[in-house]
Amino acid sequence: MTFPQVEAFRGGENLIRVVGHRGARGVLPENSMIGFDFSLSIGVPLLEFDVVLTADSIPVITHNHRLHAPTFRDANGRFLVGEEPKVSSLTVEQMQQFDIGRLDGHSAYGRRFPDQAQMDGIRVPTLMNLLELVDDPKYRDACLMLELKSDPDLAHDAVYRRNFVGRVLQDVRAKGLSSRAVLHSFDWTLLEECQRQAPDMPSSYLTQLPDNADDVGEDSSKAVCPDFRGRRDEIPKLVKEAGGALWCPYFADVTAENVALAKKLGLCVAVWTVNEHEDIDKMIDLGVDAIVSDYPGRVQRHLSDLGMRWSAIH
Amino acid sequence: MTFPQVEAFRGGENLIRVVGHRGARGVLPENSMIGFDFSLSIGVPLLEFDVVLTADSIPVITHNHRLHAPTFRDANGRFLVGEEPKVSSLTVEQMQQFDIGRLDGHSAYGRRFPDQAQMDGIRVPTLMNLLELVDDPKYRDACLMLELKSDPDLAHDAVYRRNFVGRVLQDVRAKGLSSRAVLHSFDWTLLEECQRQAPDMPSSYLTQLPDNADDVGEDSSKAVCPDFRGRRDEIPKLVKEAGGALWCPYFADVTAENVALAKKLGLCVAVWTVNEHEDIDKMIDLGVDAIVSDYPGRVQRHLSDLGMRWSAIH
Repeated sequence: MTFPQVEAFRGGENLIRVVGHRGARGVLPENSMIGFDFSLSIGVPLLEFDVVLTADSIPVITHNHRLHAPTFRDANGRFLVGEEPKVSSLTVEQMQQFDIGRLDGHSAYGRRFPDQAQMDGIRVPTLMNLLELVDDPKYRDACLMLELKSDPDLAHDAVYRRNFVGRVLQDVRAKGLSSRAVLHSFDWTLLEECQRQAPDMPSSYLTQLPDNADDVGEDSSKAVCPDFRGRRDEIPKLVKEAGGALWCPYFADVTAENVALAKKLGLCVAVWTVNEHEDIDKMIDLGVDAIVSDYPGRVQRHLSDLGMRWSAIH
Repeated sequence: MTFPQVEAFRGGENLIRVVGHRGARGVLPENSMIGFDFSLSIGVPLLEFDVVLTADSIPVITHNHRLHAPTFRDANGRFLVGEEPKVSSLTVEQMQQFDIGRLDGHSAYGRRFPDQAQMDGIRVPTLMNLLELVDDPKYRDACLMLELKSDPDLAHDAVYRRNFVGRVLQDVRAKGLSSRAVLHSFDWTLLEECQRQAPDMPSSYLTQLPDNADDVGEDSSKAVCPDFRGRRDEIPKLVKEAGGALWCPYFADVTAENVALAKKLGLCVAVWTVNEHEDIDKMIDLGVDAIVSDYPGRVQRHLSDLGMRWSAIH
């Protein structure tokens, strides 16, 4: 089965795709409408972002399964302190009381993104908000790498899983965008549920070897990702067997061997999160299909300097 | 005389203004509508940009008085080679044949901005395009630091000067924006002409000491800026005597003495172009009113980390 949205992520001769990570986290508030619009506006039509389900079953776009203290401010403009509430315990209305326009520069997380603009009045978007944006004819090339983030406390609850996937698909289908999204997760059990409910949509398998350090200030993939220790170069085979169309490894886990195997199996390889010039170079040398970056403009510049393209058109 | 647009650039207790330099040159194509819109959208309502007059007397927004080879591409997508044509020899229609969406990464100029997005189909805006953007009610706080760039070959031609200033003012007045723009130049003779034609608008005096190196790939200020060698700490007095409301020195020319003198004289001090964290810190310590930067988001982050503001509201 060939999925047009998978081909949108596929590289080629002199061509590597660029994917805006959470919009363009290096430049604008992550997982915000203004960040998505920025990425689309600069000619980076591929968007990676994170979906979590609220207490009232609304798919919203945010990374962690708890409100993220370094980016969530309360009505008084103060970053959260104390225990972070779970997204699954709040309604969408409660979520949208918080302002996600700034980064706490005194946090370890905040220090990672020193160029991010500081804004006020920015709210957690719903999945529907983003679907409506990409439904605009000017963004007809846009494709979504829609990451389903399961609450690790609920990941083994089949009813929760079914409802989570069902609600996401309901929104995607309501906007007629099933052919422009890939369903993307670290949670392979959740991806099974996706394939059950949406055999017409491709699955994208995220992986990260457990020996890599977690990114500071972010939910670890380890709570949900299978442990592939010692099997690094077999992962593409496992992804293929599980029914995957894309393989999305942490960039440090990629080798010439596993990229070659993935390509032989017809998988599209999209690596994350690649921000430094030397790492971009390594990924180009390894021949990945797509680079997911917090700095999509930087990756464009880098490819452009090498005479490479990031879109089939230009 | 108090000008509201001068107060918009004035700092205060815990407050330093941020000015987007040519939009946000570090992030997006310089002097482009998408760059201006980015700066305004992130809550940086002060825009510095450059105006040059075409052969058919249309004020257009571009920095050099010749087309800039590292940023101008022809209809075949190739960066200019050979002698760069003068803006004053081309009509606006001819100017807009060129695409300014990318930077030539192999040029010394291009290497200065490694994160700038690479776009296609971006045209030199007219001054009127930008005036129309800031006329949008959502950008009602926007103020323009409108730099008049004289063609050095014509700078001493009184008829050219009169016409240049006249055409700029005609556009600004047609949109009713005289109270939201400052007239800004290195060319003090041209600013005299501005004061003659627009006594209702403030003048902003750019200066750069000749011992500073020119920025690579840019027209030098030295062709038109008076030579203040040996008089560094007197410049504010000269600006005041010439009728200035703002003084805009190259950031390396600023001292505790000349900032103190400028403040004593009631001048507003806006320094350019400040991109590195250590330089931002120096400017904060010196107590300037405003920082002009290619990375307005970075300056916001830096101020925010210090508990400082860049707007009187937030």
